[in-house]
Amino acid sequence: MQLKKLIPVVAAAALLPSLGFAQEAVEAAETGMDAVERLNMEMVFIMNSLLFLVGGFLVFFMAAGFCMLETGLVRSKNATMQLIKNVALFSLATIAYFVVGFNLMYPLGDWVVEGWLGGIAPTVLEPAGVAFEDLDDVEYASIGSDFIFQLMFCAATASIVSGAVAERIKLWPFLVFVVILTGLIYPIQASWSWGEGFLDELGFLDFAGSSIVHGAGGWAALAGVIVLGARTGKYGKDGRVTVMAGSNLPLATLGMFILWLGWFGFNGGSQLAMGTVSDVADVSRIFANTNTAAAGGAIAALILTKILYTKPDLTMVLNGALAGLVSITAEPLMPGLGMATLIGAVGGVIVVLTVPLLDKLKLDDVVGAIPVHLFAGIWGTLAVVLTNPDATLSAQIIGIVAIGAFMFIASLVVWLILKAVMGIRVSDEDQVSGLDTTELGMEAYPEFSKG
Amino acid sequence: MQLKKLIPVVAAAALLPSLGFAQEAVEAAETGMDAVERLNMEMVFIMNSLLFLVGGFLVFFMAAGFCMLETGLVRSKNATMQLIKNVALFSLATIAYFVVGFNLMYPLGDWVVEGWLGGIAPTVLEPAGVAFEDLDDVEYASIGSDFIFQLMFCAATASIVSGAVAERIKLWPFLVFVVILTGLIYPIQASWSWGEGFLDELGFLDFAGSSIVHGAGGWAALAGVIVLGARTGKYGKDGRVTVMAGSNLPLATLGMFILWLGWFGFNGGSQLAMGTVSDVADVSRIFANTNTAAAGGAIAALILTKILYTKPDLTMVLNGALAGLVSITAEPLMPGLGMATLIGAVGGVIVVLTVPLLDKLKLDDVVGAIPVHLFAGIWGTLAVVLTNPDATLSAQIIGIVAIGAFMFIASLVVWLILKAVMGIRVSDEDQVSGLDTTELGMEAYPEFSKG
Amino acid sequence: MQLKKLIPVVAAAALLPSLGFAQEAVEAAETGMDAVERLNMEMVFIMNSLLFLVGGFLVFFMAAGFCMLETGLVRSKNATMQLIKNVALFSLATIAYFVVGFNLMYPLGDWVVEGWLGGIAPTVLEPAGVAFEDLDDVEYASIGSDFIFQLMFCAATASIVSGAVAERIKLWPFLVFVVILTGLIYPIQASWSWGEGFLDELGFLDFAGSSIVHGAGGWAALAGVIVLGARTGKYGKDGRVTVMAGSNLPLATLGMFILWLGWFGFNGGSQLAMGTVSDVADVSRIFANTNTAAAGGAIAALILTKILYTKPDLTMVLNGALAGLVSITAEPLMPGLGMATLIGAVGGVIVVLTVPLLDKLKLDDVVGAIPVHLFAGIWGTLAVVLTNPDATLSAQIIGIVAIGAFMFIASLVVWLILKAVMGIRVSDEDQVSGLDTTELGMEAYPEFSKG
Repeated sequence: MQLKKLIPVVAAAALLPSLGFAQEAVEAAETGMDAVERLNMEMVFIMNSLLFLVGGFLVFFMAAGFCMLETGLVRSKNATMQLIKNVALFSLATIAYFVVGFNLMYPLGDWVVEGWLGGIAPTVLEPAGVAFEDLDDVEYASIGSDFIFQLMFCAATASIVSGAVAERIKLWPFLVFVVILTGLIYPIQASWSWGEGFLDELGFLDFAGSSIVHGAGGWAALAGVIVLGARTGKYGKDGRVTVMAGSNLPLATLGMFILWLGWFGFNGGSQLAMGTVSDVADVSRIFANTNTAAAGGAIAALILTKILYTKPDLTMVLNGALAGLVSITAEPLMPGLGMATLIGAVGGVIVVLTVPLLDKLKLDDVVGAIPVHLFAGIWGTLAVVLTNPDATLSAQIIGIVAIGAFMFIASLVVWLILKAVMGIRVSDEDQVSGLDTTELGMEAYPEFSKG
Repeated sequence: MQLKKLIPVVAAAALLPSLGFAQEAVEAAETGMDAVERLNMEMVFIMNSLLFLVGGFLVFFMAAGFCMLETGLVRSKNATMQLIKNVALFSLATIAYFVVGFNLMYPLGDWVVEGWLGGIAPTVLEPAGVAFEDLDDVEYASIGSDFIFQLMFCAATASIVSGAVAERIKLWPFLVFVVILTGLIYPIQASWSWGEGFLDELGFLDFAGSSIVHGAGGWAALAGVIVLGARTGKYGKDGRVTVMAGSNLPLATLGMFILWLGWFGFNGGSQLAMGTVSDVADVSRIFANTNTAAAGGAIAALILTKILYTKPDLTMVLNGALAGLVSITAEPLMPGLGMATLIGAVGGVIVVLTVPLLDKLKLDDVVGAIPVHLFAGIWGTLAVVLTNPDATLSAQIIGIVAIGAFMFIASLVVWLILKAVMGIRVSDEDQVSGLDTTELGMEAYPEFSKG
Repeated sequence: MQLKKLIPVVAAAALLPSLGFAQEAVEAAETGMDAVERLNMEMVFIMNSLLFLVGGFLVFFMAAGFCMLETGLVRSKNATMQLIKNVALFSLATIAYFVVGFNLMYPLGDWVVEGWLGGIAPTVLEPAGVAFEDLDDVEYASIGSDFIFQLMFCAATASIVSGAVAERIKLWPFLVFVVILTGLIYPIQASWSWGEGFLDELGFLDFAGSSIVHGAGGWAALAGVIVLGARTGKYGKDGRVTVMAGSNLPLATLGMFILWLGWFGFNGGSQLAMGTVSDVADVSRIFANTNTAAAGGAIAALILTKILYTKPDLTMVLNGALAGLVSITAEPLMPGLGMATLIGAVGGVIVVLTVPLLDKLKLDDVVGAIPVHLFAGIWGTLAVVLTNPDATLSAQIIGIVAIGAFMFIASLVVWLILKAVMGIRVSDEDQVSGLDTTELGMEAYPEFSKG
């Protein structure tokens, strides 16, 4: 803000030979200046908090988006399971993140191991009716608004995993994984960059989390997919891949649109400030770029599937849009609209090319979460160097590798322990019957005959 | 705000021996102070109005949430009826509330019977392009924003009723009930607390309406369920309860997520102010607590149904989350995150335990609206005393009883009159065929074979 | 704002006989005034931009609303096509509007043909981290926020077309039409009013686009419907009209609710300012009127279909609500709540009466887009004269005719060229099989048997 520049003028006036009345007048003027500055500080605090609140509810809605996308892309016999997993994972993430995650991710100097392992303490909000003088950080935003916004990012990583391991994972071990992921693994990793840890020191740049959120979720999903194995019947011995079509594409498309909507909050809110003209103009740029990158990803997938398969593929278009969004997430501010379109389009191309690749490796990712969130996330993280002069390729690569190694190994260990202790995979017979009947005893569409 | 403290300083300066030029300077400084104060007043008004507008569109969307939740939980042969009822009830509530309800609820001193029966007049908004000097209440918010926000609460009570009486009520008497509920019964009752009526005088505290909105809707629903009787075939003569499974659980889950989203507006907007740092920090606390209570309710229902029935129950988890939300609604500000989780979790437990109880009493509440909104609402209203030192158990109980007695009796009378005059129950044969064919001649899913 | 009035006082003080210290004090006071004024300017800019951002994401979500509405109203064999068309059209509109449309629509003095044909240049946003001094228009809002808001209106016109021509149009020619519509036809027409072109000069008033957006989309749809012909089997030789019922009415209802939600942004955001008490009170009025008009339209359709057909018709109620929204869009500010209800109700009546009329003319509009957006749009545009004293009937009629003639003729030419060059209509056999199998090879609900 401009106001601080004005203070010297006032201060100079105060140094004048002090004729009583004039001095009083000067003081009155100073008082006025203080009032302006104070009002300005308050407005900045309010606007920043508001950005987090609006961003928070938008990103919250992404939980519904993931849920609908995934439920639309699984077969109807596993739909209830996908619903209950998504409601439960968000709920557990909420609790794990306030009990452990938030301070682990944002230690604010209170590290257990400086730059590597954050603070251990549950989240405490500012008291009700907090006074200006008692605000935790008057130049930032309310703790509650910051907490609610950051929580939603944490929960998103679990949603990403949920889609990849669908249709054959048991409910309870999955939920145990979610608690560990959202309470420990994600926050520790995220603290390295956003909690001012060692990756931040190194100059790693990931504005809203192409790697820190989407890549992280993708790595955890990849570990799960490997430990869990493919769905029964997915890959034949002759190398044939059985298509297991999504049961409700309108629902999946709705999910994609909700995710796109939520991404305005995801990226826009990551500006972390809206109380100055400069910040609000930046949030606006981010909105425009985020939207354009999604469009680029969708169009690229539309055209590429048309070329490759003669008919365009709706699920690829949905994933293309999402990949465009993931790709722009690491740097939604600096590109122009044309560059944002390109960055998104490359994301869409990556998805179309890598979905079959996973099948070749017999990695059974039900909804395409790994191409969308991990592969496009890597691309997006690298693409920061195209438009942000502060980024270096080396720092970006170090970040991708460090996040990837930690997320993958930590997740792998947890998955392996869960496999050994609880068992994580539903039996072949039960998979054929469907998880809804065998695990839950409740069908998603009990009245509609299955063709 | 802090600004008023500064005025004495300026005033003191004005009392100095009046050397012309100094006085001019002091006046200039005073003018500056006035400008700051004025700007501050304007910003508070704008931010408060904005809170209502954002809260308003979020709570509006809850109408869609209720509609999807209920439509997903009825059988497909009654789905079109549930859709048309929900669209119509919201539309009628809109009109009834502006013609009668709003001033009945907020008489602003213009009571017909002081503290008991509010004002009789249609809603009049501030004129277009209203000047600062002509604002109705410069320290609050625009009438239009207040109206739109409060309307949504009124409509929610009708949505609650709609779910409980589903699958056997006739359309038109239901809609007549909605008009009376939203135009008269709800606003009269709500005026007692929020319109500064007798319950407010007594110290009854219900921040965003665990009793005033959710309990109220639940009481109206209970009266309807009693007068209407159970669905044909629901309760056998041998005491057997027939499960009538919801036809579209993804839709019901989407509805729950939309309601959860809308609740950020429902509770957050009920702070009624966002123009100071203290208020925005409070709204943030409310967001965090609201979200956490929902999570607590969902998890409690998940675990409890697993324990009780060996398999977790999705519809209970959905209702558990909603019960968590209802439970925190009476006091979403004062609890910490841990207490909010507990308050929500108790709500989830209440739902799981009382849904079968209603069946034992042969009270056929199709979607579980009475456990979620009434029983958890009572719990939430009582739970205010746990964290708010201004609350007394006696005042909370008086409020619950007064609201309950009035809502139940008034609703019962209206239901009985409607039963006598129009008939409210669809015949057994037509229930078997389904309301969509018999009452509307339009199927919700005409192409999907029913299993 | 009031602040400018205060400046003369300060200026007068500055003219006093200049005793050094007093002058300093006066200067300090002036500095304070400047700071207040500056802060005020910043806050207005921030609030206006915020209005566009919130309005932008709300109107964005209307793309999902249109998609769900249309997909629910087509037969399930064409649902995947409707989904892919909606995702693709929004994506293409995004790119066409930033590459060409935005500056064509808002030439800001840089017309190719003054008042008739705007500027030719891609959209360039303000640079990242823009300073106050470098803002494009400090009294308005950030370019990015304005762009994102206006883009959503442009995309809406394409969504309107998409519903009308459903179930028999080929994907690629449709998408080519979308690019031309959103990049050229719509922006040229819209510049005449909102870009300060010749219709604006004539005093044509259309606040948020009853004609400029909804009518425009309706005209483009009408041209498409004429060139394309009806769906195979829709109109028998004996004049019999075959009902082709929507396959998923819950989805269609959800779409309607999402559109209603988005309309708060559509009309509220069109106030274009929220940084003064007057503006925020106006936005509030607009919210209330918009909501009320939708209710009026829904209720009118409910009652009228009950009277005409003995049973109320859900799809007419949905379209009635939408017609209410379209009707109030040309003037959502000036009416009171009662008048808004009436204006919306007339919209609902128009839909109920004109849907069969189109069938008589063998104009096959699958979702009723032409009655809702064009006919109710004309009504809404005319209705401005009822409440806005600045409107004249002649200017409104000229606007309707000019927009209609241009939109219809330009669209007709493009459709005819596409028909000649690419062919636009799917063959009769493929229509019978369904576009999802023949054009896309992907079913929307592959597991649900078709009855």
